[in-house]
Amino acid sequence: MEVGYSVWDWKPQRNRDITIYQQILEYLERRIFYGELSPGSRLPSERQLARYLGVNRSTIISVYQELEAKGLVEAFKRQGTYVCTRLDSGRKQSLLWHRYMKENSIPPNLSLYRRVQEEAQNDRCINFTGDLLEPLFPHDPLSDVIAENRFTESLKYEHPQGHLPLRQTISEHMKKYYNMDVTSSSVLVTSGAQQSLYLITHSLLHPGDAIAVEKPSYFCSLPLFQSAGLRLFPLSVDEHGVHPEEVEELYRKHRIQMVFLNPTYQNPTGYTLSLQRRKELLKVCSTFRIPIVEDDPFSLLAPEPVAPPLKAMDPYGLVLYIGSLSKVVASNLRVGWLIGPQEIMDRLGDVRQQMDYGLSIFPQWVAHLFLSSSHFHSHVHELQLALQRRKQLLVTLLQQHLGQYVTFHPPHGGIHLWCQIKHPVQDIKLLEAAIRKKVLYMPGSVYGAKDGHARFTFSRPYEEEMEEGVLRFKKALDIL
Amino acid sequence: MEVGYSVWDWKPQRNRDITIYQQILEYLERRIFYGELSPGSRLPSERQLARYLGVNRSTIISVYQELEAKGLVEAFKRQGTYVCTRLDSGRKQSLLWHRYMKENSIPPNLSLYRRVQEEAQNDRCINFTGDLLEPLFPHDPLSDVIAENRFTESLKYEHPQGHLPLRQTISEHMKKYYNMDVTSSSVLVTSGAQQSLYLITHSLLHPGDAIAVEKPSYFCSLPLFQSAGLRLFPLSVDEHGVHPEEVEELYRKHRIQMVFLNPTYQNPTGYTLSLQRRKELLKVCSTFRIPIVEDDPFSLLAPEPVAPPLKAMDPYGLVLYIGSLSKVVASNLRVGWLIGPQEIMDRLGDVRQQMDYGLSIFPQWVAHLFLSSSHFHSHVHELQLALQRRKQLLVTLLQQHLGQYVTFHPPHGGIHLWCQIKHPVQDIKLLEAAIRKKVLYMPGSVYGAKDGHARFTFSRPYEEEMEEGVLRFKKALDIL
Ligand SMILES: Cc1ncc(COP(=O)(O)O)c(C=O)c1O
Ligand SMILES: Cc1ncc(COP(=O)(O)O)c(C=O)c1O
Repeated sequence: MEVGYSVWDWKPQRNRDITIYQQILEYLERRIFYGELSPGSRLPSERQLARYLGVNRSTIISVYQELEAKGLVEAFKRQGTYVCTRLDSGRKQSLLWHRYMKENSIPPNLSLYRRVQEEAQNDRCINFTGDLLEPLFPHDPLSDVIAENRFTESLKYEHPQGHLPLRQTISEHMKKYYNMDVTSSSVLVTSGAQQSLYLITHSLLHPGDAIAVEKPSYFCSLPLFQSAGLRLFPLSVDEHGVHPEEVEELYRKHRIQMVFLNPTYQNPTGYTLSLQRRKELLKVCSTFRIPIVEDDPFSLLAPEPVAPPLKAMDPYGLVLYIGSLSKVVASNLRVGWLIGPQEIMDRLGDVRQQMDYGLSIFPQWVAHLFLSSSHFHSHVHELQLALQRRKQLLVTLLQQHLGQYVTFHPPHGGIHLWCQIKHPVQDIKLLEAAIRKKVLYMPGSVYGAKDGHARFTFSRPYEEEMEEGVLRFKKALDIL
Repeated sequence: MEVGYSVWDWKPQRNRDITIYQQILEYLERRIFYGELSPGSRLPSERQLARYLGVNRSTIISVYQELEAKGLVEAFKRQGTYVCTRLDSGRKQSLLWHRYMKENSIPPNLSLYRRVQEEAQNDRCINFTGDLLEPLFPHDPLSDVIAENRFTESLKYEHPQGHLPLRQTISEHMKKYYNMDVTSSSVLVTSGAQQSLYLITHSLLHPGDAIAVEKPSYFCSLPLFQSAGLRLFPLSVDEHGVHPEEVEELYRKHRIQMVFLNPTYQNPTGYTLSLQRRKELLKVCSTFRIPIVEDDPFSLLAPEPVAPPLKAMDPYGLVLYIGSLSKVVASNLRVGWLIGPQEIMDRLGDVRQQMDYGLSIFPQWVAHLFLSSSHFHSHVHELQLALQRRKQLLVTLLQQHLGQYVTFHPPHGGIHLWCQIKHPVQDIKLLEAAIRKKVLYMPGSVYGAKDGHARFTFSRPYEEEMEEGVLRFKKALDIL
């Protein structure tokens, strides 16, 4: 039975003028009228609903009979009670919405991904997917900076590029951590990397444009690239990242308009583009004047960097840099930024006004306080150590228990480790086997890889359950 | 001279190893490379820049000469120094961005509107445009609820429809203030009405779809309707709102797919759709099965409502209701909501994930705290009284000083008053005359009205300056 939990988050009241029966009847009628219980959906069984609402089953039987008489539901023996798909006249209007949902340009999420999300919610599995385990987020220091600083910011609509103090703090942040030299006029504060990517794909590019993306990559899993109507051409990835000569090839063949990269501790492989290839890539892109989008949510997540961001090495103004606090502070803070030529930031700021009128002052205020406090640096330091320890633990466990089953290159930093399974498997079968053994990982095909890859996110499970998780995964491989 | 203020928010340092000259030269080179000083833009004069940076003018002269020698800037006698539009080889890359800015599907904002915004920033005029004067926002109670409640919410990605406690609070809010009966599963929390409108226009409708909008209206001023490729058909508005029979007519002629209304204290007219017409409208739309988008940011802004929201009168499930805290709490909080059939909310929640991965927890936390505190009700009460007083004041002043020049229907509530100017005027001329007399209002043509209308927002100026503002407007009319 699938129910929107809050539709059933309701109880009739004993001491009211109208009977319990009448109350339940009216309540359900309204839920059906408003389409909250949608046509074709199944109602709870009479017994279940009686239990939810704390009433007699006979009351629910009468209610369902009345709803049936009114033509609102249909009961099928042994199958349950369903909201009618063709409601009689005055009542069929909730159906009117269906035509607005068809042929939508935005595709539904990927099915394996959905399957993983579903299981993750049940919380029955040891979970190697997702992002950070809640205790790795800086709950206390965040709550402290909020408690220690009275909120006194303006409450009016603000600058389209975002709150100036935060943009200044971000400039200092980029200088301090990346030796990158940008003024706040080149910074656009966004609602995370997701919004930065949406703005770039939906307003700098046009349907039909060709772009290059790493394969596998996070980008391959994003429906927004499809909804923008872009043609995606793959760049192959090895443990040193993409191959600059492939960019040139794609340019010559398909006139790619932009290159999207997540060059440091890439999602899903954990690989990092080497310094040498960074230089070559910038050279190729400058020769052919191809802008690069550098999505960089992970680069603080290792004690020592492998290489500077592309943006910091780019004298040509080719790189749009995407930063985010989602993995370093909190996903639900929804603060990220774009750095690029001022006129582009200005333009994207304008476009963003149309979408949401800019980011709320509150996350910007919190991000500014936290980034400019001493808490930030020590939090990052602790997080780096915790992630290194977890990574080392996972590497050891995989070598110990799965050495014969998988190969992998341990990542230098970040949160993801990418395994190739030695013998041929179908992703869907392996995933279902893993779910049966109560362990979750992300199948590689979600990111556009061939079958037979698995992404393990070592920032996600409790350390104490990691060994058990790896053993369960082994059992899943064994039963295939 | 137009400069991005923060590009010039920099000073060379006296005690560094490199000379002041070298520092300034490098700084400007980088600003030009990165496109922050964009091709074709004018640099400050040598004298101005010397003053900004606190250095000798001769240093700046040398710097500009060197920049010119490097082919980065061009100096024209008496006209100043400009960033080159054709930079030599390795340096021309910042130009590469231009092609990404052309032919963009999103039109720039309207020019009269821009002109007003520009002047509003200078703060030289008495301002009858915009939204609420900062002191009308509940600064203290908001800061108090933040200070009194330690932040302990989860920091992980959240439910696509928004933070559940806030959705529940919104349900209670709708019940308390509008006697509307909705569960939290039918609520989608958004980044203000703007995002609700974006979601509806960009994912339930398709390019080429016909819709009906009030004329004049806020919608006519929104580029997002154009960027969604919609065909807009006007509904005329009188002091009792739109005419339901025109909706029928538009349906028969153009098969309109949706009706967009701001039925209560409409922006820009302040008019309210009468109870009678609300009933007729719902009947027409139910007969032809046309969904209605009810944008309702103002309806709490009067002590007594004229009529319930359309959504509260709608047994057909036709209405998507848009609520917002922008005018009632704070624009920069960026919290609004959509109410409609659960499957639509679910769908729009999915689409929103692609745009920004959902709203930050912080504004949702603040909105939940404030709405569920006792502060909210007393704030609304005070705001209602303040706005009634301001409205009455403006009505009196207009009658007293401008009785021979304008006609108007005093609005029942909200923040806007709409004047028709009795003799023919051109909006652009009147606006420029008003700016010369140092008073700002919003020309009606911004909202799609014929020339000769003015919107006065009585929530915006200080009460003490309202009389002077009206007198200045009179002078502007006189000099035309
Ligand atoms: C490579 C990459 N980019 C962007 C994002 C989205 O980040 P944000 O929360 O900042 O939108 C993710 C999230 O997992 C990611 O892995
Ligand atoms: C009628 C109307 N709808 C929506 C909005 C935008 O409100 P929000 O700040 O909630 O996006 C405004 C703002 O002026 C408005 O006048």
